[in-house]
Amino acid sequence: MALPNPHGPEKKLMLLFLEGAAREAEIARAAGLPKVYMTSMETSDILMLGMGAFTPLRGFMNKAECQGCVFDLKLPDGTMWPMPVTLSISADELASSGVKEGSDVALIDRESGELYGTMTVEEIYQIDKLAQCKEVYKTDDAEGHPGVAKTMAQGEHNLGGPVKALNEGKYGAIYPKYYMYPAQSRALFEEKGWSRVVAFQTRNPMHRSHEYLVKFALESGNVDGAFIHAIVGALKAGDIPGETRVKCYEALIDNWFPKQNIALGVYPMEMRYGGPREALLHAVFRQNFGCKYLIVGRDHAGVGSYYGPFDAQTIFDELRPGALELAPMKINWTFYCYKCESMASLMTCPHEKEDRVIVSGTQFRRAMQEGAELPKEFGRPEVLAILEEYYQTAEKVEIKKHAYEDLTPEMLKKIQEGKK
Amino acid sequence: MALPNPHGPEKKLMLLFLEGAAREAEIARAAGLPKVYMTSMETSDILMLGMGAFTPLRGFMNKAECQGCVFDLKLPDGTMWPMPVTLSISADELASSGVKEGSDVALIDRESGELYGTMTVEEIYQIDKLAQCKEVYKTDDAEGHPGVAKTMAQGEHNLGGPVKALNEGKYGAIYPKYYMYPAQSRALFEEKGWSRVVAFQTRNPMHRSHEYLVKFALESGNVDGAFIHAIVGALKAGDIPGETRVKCYEALIDNWFPKQNIALGVYPMEMRYGGPREALLHAVFRQNFGCKYLIVGRDHAGVGSYYGPFDAQTIFDELRPGALELAPMKINWTFYCYKCESMASLMTCPHEKEDRVIVSGTQFRRAMQEGAELPKEFGRPEVLAILEEYYQTAEKVEIKKHAYEDLTPEMLKKIQEGKK
Repeated sequence: MALPNPHGPEKKLMLLFLEGAAREAEIARAAGLPKVYMTSMETSDILMLGMGAFTPLRGFMNKAECQGCVFDLKLPDGTMWPMPVTLSISADELASSGVKEGSDVALIDRESGELYGTMTVEEIYQIDKLAQCKEVYKTDDAEGHPGVAKTMAQGEHNLGGPVKALNEGKYGAIYPKYYMYPAQSRALFEEKGWSRVVAFQTRNPMHRSHEYLVKFALESGNVDGAFIHAIVGALKAGDIPGETRVKCYEALIDNWFPKQNIALGVYPMEMRYGGPREALLHAVFRQNFGCKYLIVGRDHAGVGSYYGPFDAQTIFDELRPGALELAPMKINWTFYCYKCESMASLMTCPHEKEDRVIVSGTQFRRAMQEGAELPKEFGRPEVLAILEEYYQTAEKVEIKKHAYEDLTPEMLKKIQEGKK
Repeated sequence: MALPNPHGPEKKLMLLFLEGAAREAEIARAAGLPKVYMTSMETSDILMLGMGAFTPLRGFMNKAECQGCVFDLKLPDGTMWPMPVTLSISADELASSGVKEGSDVALIDRESGELYGTMTVEEIYQIDKLAQCKEVYKTDDAEGHPGVAKTMAQGEHNLGGPVKALNEGKYGAIYPKYYMYPAQSRALFEEKGWSRVVAFQTRNPMHRSHEYLVKFALESGNVDGAFIHAIVGALKAGDIPGETRVKCYEALIDNWFPKQNIALGVYPMEMRYGGPREALLHAVFRQNFGCKYLIVGRDHAGVGSYYGPFDAQTIFDELRPGALELAPMKINWTFYCYKCESMASLMTCPHEKEDRVIVSGTQFRRAMQEGAELPKEFGRPEVLAILEEYYQTAEKVEIKKHAYEDLTPEMLKKIQEGKK
């Protein structure tokens, strides 16, 4: 059996990174182009585009693509696509930069000032941001929902057109073993003899529940191996930074999984917290990475209480047949049950709430910050030890580094005050 | 979603049991017909035929059907069928009974002398029993393999033709809550709102490993409920009788499963120990019972070491697409691991053999008979208590009652001496 095809009609990975002399020449050319400044999310999207994770996209969406995916879950050619991948610019910057339809522009990360790519601006257009948020995020709550906040904070105009990616950013250096392109994960799977790979999306350290999800995906008999695929782009306040999480994943894999059945990778996207729509996006690019299944648990890619706990599962049922080659593995709410003496879910455990270890994120962070003991059934000791160290030393600075650089101070304040 | 269709081109359950006046009339008519005496397996097959479990079969196979399923895994109309369902008669009895092609005959259980049905003998034929065994059982070892032993012990001639079933036997009385026809299990599933039911085939008491198989089938996200479906026809020496096992299943379900997700049923077939071929038979009739999935673990329906541990899984891959509406859920060797602190399998546990609780059937029986302690991770206490009581009081007589009534004394002796 072969790995699933890359997404889209051509079934071929789009590699938008230039290399060698072509790259050097394009960097030189970029110096003379008008500059467009990108938010951290736009910068992370260039990396996803560049490596082919967003195949079949060849750049930032034009209006028809954007509207198609927002309102109809598909690109103009009919390919399923669930979330906008767009580049915005404020009216002021548009005027001062002199960018017009037909211009080539240099794409600069606003935070670092680094060049990440170039783009031919085929279209400059406006969208109804509020309508887009209501469709994509099912809410227009810019104060509470980080995805909506980012959308509402972005410039009034979008620039659509094909991209040439020129800069790998920091990820390869930070995660030399785990940062990989879709072509690389596919090669890894083939080397391992896997054709049926299940992806586990994670933005958290993996506790017993997460381990359980991956393990029973492995038990399903449908799977040759599991790909722990961790997002390491910017997260929201309180999420644990990628470097720390990768140590946790390593500790878990080294001690608690058969090595031959598991692989770890990281990818540079920034979470949108889009719940069901983001679950579909996760599925699309996992197919590009060569995975046949994606574990979709409770409140996948959700935040606050904007989505029903299983909305991210049921949205897959609404796709037309053939929209994806990847299939979701849908899994219920899991916990450790002292009476079952095992991990379990509402499908399998007949006992009471009091018999179960359910630790909320808030309880978890409080316990960690205060040095309180967590039940051993919550997480493996090697993982908890790493987190304990992190919380004792790193939290205050890390939160600043990893959240919402592109939001207004008022928005940031409200989010940090906990109005989820 | 609807339950899977009954097997066969008509997608309709065959109910061969007569009822009411028609049944009375047929019983009266049978009194005047030549008698054909059936082995316990043939008698159990009439029950399976009668209730529609062997849909689309309408009686004992004729030669084309028998040869088709033995050598090509299909009936003459192309319907997948994996094992013979035949009625045999010795040359002597054939001569003395006066049965001819075209005769109607009364079908009598040899052990009890009771009438179970009538049949129109459309064809009298001979088969190459050894060739059949080599195809179906992958061995011709009549001394070691109980299925081969039964085949080789049967009469030289087969009688093929449609059956009218007239007698329910003892099962309804012994298992009033659990003995059900395919139409009844389907009604039960529909009442529960289940359309995606996973069947668990069992001829043993359920230990932690079995519980784990069912639980992670429930976790798979593909399943609305699990149907524990226990064989209660004659077993081989040393297997635990149905009445005792049903108590074990009840104890397990009552204490360790959410009631809304699980159902228990029993069926009267006699094990053939046919490994891969029998796994397919289990799949065919589970589809008739309304199930969408069948759990197929290690050495499903096997005996001794005639089959590779996963042959019963891979045989499903050889079926032509559409041969079955039911799909297997294939599962690896499972055990409790003290280091994982959970049930696990070779897919999920990285630890050593010494860390695992693996109790063989022999060790289990010895521990039970000697009153030795079994590790609590092997079975749930409520189940082990029932088995302890059984082994202390019942074994010697039960073995006699439940094995090989139809084998020659020499064969029985050899089998009982432990040559599996």
